[in-house]
Amino acid sequence: MAGTDPMVRRPALPASLQTPAVLIDLDILNRNIEALARTVAARGQRLRPHVKTHKIPQIAALQVAAGATGLTVATVGEAEVFAEAGVDDLFIAYPLWVGEPMAPRLAALARKANLRVGVDSVEGARNLAARLGPDAGRPGVMIELDSGHHRSGAAPDQAAGIAVAARDEGLRVAGVFTFPGHSYGPGASAGAVDDESRVLEQASRALQAAGFVDLELSGGSTPTAYAPGAGVATEVRPGVYVFNDAQQLEMGHCGVDEIALTVAATVVSRRAGGQSGGQVVLDAGTKVLGGDRPAWASGFARILGHPGARVTALSEHHGTVVFPDGSPLPAHGEQLQVIPNHVCLVPNLVDSVTVVQRADGGPEAADAYGIVDRWEVAARGRNS
Amino acid sequence: MAGTDPMVRRPALPASLQTPAVLIDLDILNRNIEALARTVAARGQRLRPHVKTHKIPQIAALQVAAGATGLTVATVGEAEVFAEAGVDDLFIAYPLWVGEPMAPRLAALARKANLRVGVDSVEGARNLAARLGPDAGRPGVMIELDSGHHRSGAAPDQAAGIAVAARDEGLRVAGVFTFPGHSYGPGASAGAVDDESRVLEQASRALQAAGFVDLELSGGSTPTAYAPGAGVATEVRPGVYVFNDAQQLEMGHCGVDEIALTVAATVVSRRAGGQSGGQVVLDAGTKVLGGDRPAWASGFARILGHPGARVTALSEHHGTVVFPDGSPLPAHGEQLQVIPNHVCLVPNLVDSVTVVQRADGGPEAADAYGIVDRWEVAARGRNS
Repeated sequence: MAGTDPMVRRPALPASLQTPAVLIDLDILNRNIEALARTVAARGQRLRPHVKTHKIPQIAALQVAAGATGLTVATVGEAEVFAEAGVDDLFIAYPLWVGEPMAPRLAALARKANLRVGVDSVEGARNLAARLGPDAGRPGVMIELDSGHHRSGAAPDQAAGIAVAARDEGLRVAGVFTFPGHSYGPGASAGAVDDESRVLEQASRALQAAGFVDLELSGGSTPTAYAPGAGVATEVRPGVYVFNDAQQLEMGHCGVDEIALTVAATVVSRRAGGQSGGQVVLDAGTKVLGGDRPAWASGFARILGHPGARVTALSEHHGTVVFPDGSPLPAHGEQLQVIPNHVCLVPNLVDSVTVVQRADGGPEAADAYGIVDRWEVAARGRNS
Repeated sequence: MAGTDPMVRRPALPASLQTPAVLIDLDILNRNIEALARTVAARGQRLRPHVKTHKIPQIAALQVAAGATGLTVATVGEAEVFAEAGVDDLFIAYPLWVGEPMAPRLAALARKANLRVGVDSVEGARNLAARLGPDAGRPGVMIELDSGHHRSGAAPDQAAGIAVAARDEGLRVAGVFTFPGHSYGPGASAGAVDDESRVLEQASRALQAAGFVDLELSGGSTPTAYAPGAGVATEVRPGVYVFNDAQQLEMGHCGVDEIALTVAATVVSRRAGGQSGGQVVLDAGTKVLGGDRPAWASGFARILGHPGARVTALSEHHGTVVFPDGSPLPAHGEQLQVIPNHVCLVPNLVDSVTVVQRADGGPEAADAYGIVDRWEVAARGRNS
């Protein structure tokens, strides 16, 4: 949170950009990766970033270079992509239900990498063991706990029973984990850190009493990773922090100068409201921005350099932006940079992202961004 | 709207399906395509279906075989895919702002197909003409009108001014169009048909007075295409009707037996609420279902065969389904078919769809679906 000036000037967009285009500011990306790595290391925690946010091996490599001890993924398909890219420590933080087609893929991954997978029920643990069989590669098991988000995850007092069932099936129990998704909301992260610590501690005490040792206590989300105070977690799994987004901005977790991903879009339609204000329509909608809008968000997206503007509606290829009275309305054909609400949805919607950097790479703003790379979203669409 | 029995039984899912998987029931797809084609033809209208919904040339071929006179697309990239697939009559129903990289692509398309593009401003018409130059292939121009959705589109009394500006620049004006997006809502479609007719008629009278002839009056959306009474439109552009979705179901525009696209998903987590009811978590979230939920929708998705169940929350890879009291809760590992709220978002999230058919292909339900094809989503991600 180095700076929060909403009007901070960015370089001009590259000429001849075909919009909508997903842009990554390489300098901001690097700063975000390094800053959180330092914060987490200073707390004595391990950092296992969630790469579902970006799905891009080049970004994972920057995270590993900054000290990440491994990666978190959401699906077997994502694990395969990052294992293929050379990452050898992977946690599928999801209560997998392993069916026939998934079993050999999981066994192959477990032979290739230090692999952990989530389970949140006795049934899930038994199914995992039965599907893999005694001879196949077997991942370590992390028991998922519900710390207040009320999605998946067992109650802390069920954790020991699940762990014992897993051990009885010959599985190695590596620890417990939770996703404090209720940390998303203005002022919610401190309470969520407390909830996370409470369930991790309660479950780990029960597991220790049942004879389990060397337990990983895995927690975290970007809001809780940014929150002061680490709690009891031994590792944290934030994802969004590499890019940040309008949700993090609205919750006060980052400044505009820490927004690394934007979607360049063109004004295609325009309706002036008298001398100033009014609305424009951009050529970016849900098919590139995603459609998430929590109840507490003031819009579907923000516009860089226009702090008073709000994206009030999204269709698939239309983003309606309302400008307040007294604010000059962008012209037809003008290109704006949209800050999406929930950045994890964005790379998954494109085949590649455009990596840009100020021409001089230094703190003094050059006049224009240069395109320095194009990264394929290697794990795009890997939903299973 | 042949039948609306919410408990209509579907065949069992293919064994060894890796979920989440997008399934197309080929028989229902064919029935939907043929039924709307008959309805529209009986009204004396032309049918130009919007293929942004499916992005699949094989489905477009079925629509053309059933009598579609051309296709509607949202982007130049979609137009390129369907032109490549052999479709020679395409309307980009979007107020294009043509920049440097788009101009040669548009000129190439205009040489290859009967091409129409949208504009909604004098500036847009002049920019189109200037970018293409006098010698390049030039598409016909359709003036977009706002009929009440208040997104893009000019007011009807601005249409003649835009048309004259386009003509002055040497462009051919082919007609006027509108998207009555305010037709989305329970009971809203009849009023939207009236609004659509009023603006199409008002603008076309003004254009005729300015000397324009042979005007296409292009309207429609799936709700208005289903609504009784055609209005004045000479062609309609529905998209969703090929698949239908939970929104159309909730608005009463289709029955469950007209839902052609579902997302097969597995129960990965389960929380029973006593004897019955409770919630399960499916391995399908916004990254395969999309996240659209209008204020009038009762959930984020529906579940086939479980009319009382509602998807109450979606994360990227989690769908939380709440079952009412007295309703048996699906077991761990059970596969369910999810009916997405807004189906246009779904094919765009996957590389291919799985085409299934009852084993006997006839009206008597066989015990299981067979996989009969796999269609690539050829225009996936073509946002520009």
